[in-house]
Amino acid sequence: MERKSFGDMQCPIARSLERVGEWWSILIMRDAFYGLTRFDEFQKSLGIAPNMLTRRLKGLVESGLMERREYSSRPVRHEYVLTDAGREFRPVVLSLLVWGNKHFAPEGPSILIRHAKTGKLAVPVLVDKTSGEEIADSGAFKLVAGPAADSELRKRLASQYEATL
Amino acid sequence: MERKSFGDMQCPIARSLERVGEWWSILIMRDAFYGLTRFDEFQKSLGIAPNMLTRRLKGLVESGLMERREYSSRPVRHEYVLTDAGREFRPVVLSLLVWGNKHFAPEGPSILIRHAKTGKLAVPVLVDKTSGEEIADSGAFKLVAGPAADSELRKRLASQYEATL
Repeated sequence: MERKSFGDMQCPIARSLERVGEWWSILIMRDAFYGLTRFDEFQKSLGIAPNMLTRRLKGLVESGLMERREYSSRPVRHEYVLTDAGREFRPVVLSLLVWGNKHFAPEGPSILIRHAKTGKLAVPVLVDKTSGEEIADSGAFKLVAGPAADSELRKRLASQYEATL
Repeated sequence: MERKSFGDMQCPIARSLERVGEWWSILIMRDAFYGLTRFDEFQKSLGIAPNMLTRRLKGLVESGLMERREYSSRPVRHEYVLTDAGREFRPVVLSLLVWGNKHFAPEGPSILIRHAKTGKLAVPVLVDKTSGEEIADSGAFKLVAGPAADSELRKRLASQYEATL
């Protein structure tokens, strides 16, 4: 392991990264959003070594992001489905999709998001539900200490004059 | 390396993950959003080994996400600032923040987003700018093949009856 554990850090971003674990885990969750549930489906989709896939699925179950369920008793077979916490990871995956399309698809996008009814292409942006304003590079929002912030984090957030969004 | 390169995959999510590289890179970018620019600032903030930080910063510069700039010529000193592509990674970081606050902060959130003018707490959600609708777990949106999708990806997206968002 070349990285230390971020889980104990106060930062919620670091904690999230700790739970998701590795890139493979994000791609497994992506495939779960696509509707894949079975070991061999994930294996075929990702081209991942079986022992690695076993490890990653176990990690996702232990982190509470996926659930292992028996779907057949004779023979015993299990499937893996997202928990509520796992499903709520979707905005992260979709933000990665939007960013990848914009910056790393010189030949044009290969996956797009479409409104199911109107058929129009979606343009996903992060919006503050309270004010209705887009959280863009405008300085309209800032990061502030929450109730559980320790003194070091408070100092840090207060001193970061550029921590506007 | 226990993972293969995702960079050649068509999936924009996989490509994004390839560019960002490792968790450290995301935390470096997080600190850059906070306004940190200097090697020793990143080092102090992250508690990362200097050789590792050098490697990660180099990777971020090579991927076009950060720029290395001379800010002093005598002595020669460099700082690291986000490029446009780097700054546009922010929705991913903020989505991680929201998710981490919700699921992995049992003692309460330590970082929150606040509207600078009204002072009200922001509730970031992913919204389709075209329709104005929230991209939630409602089945209102779906993933579809883009112009650059190859036949395998097209087949895959078409067969994923549950690839609704």
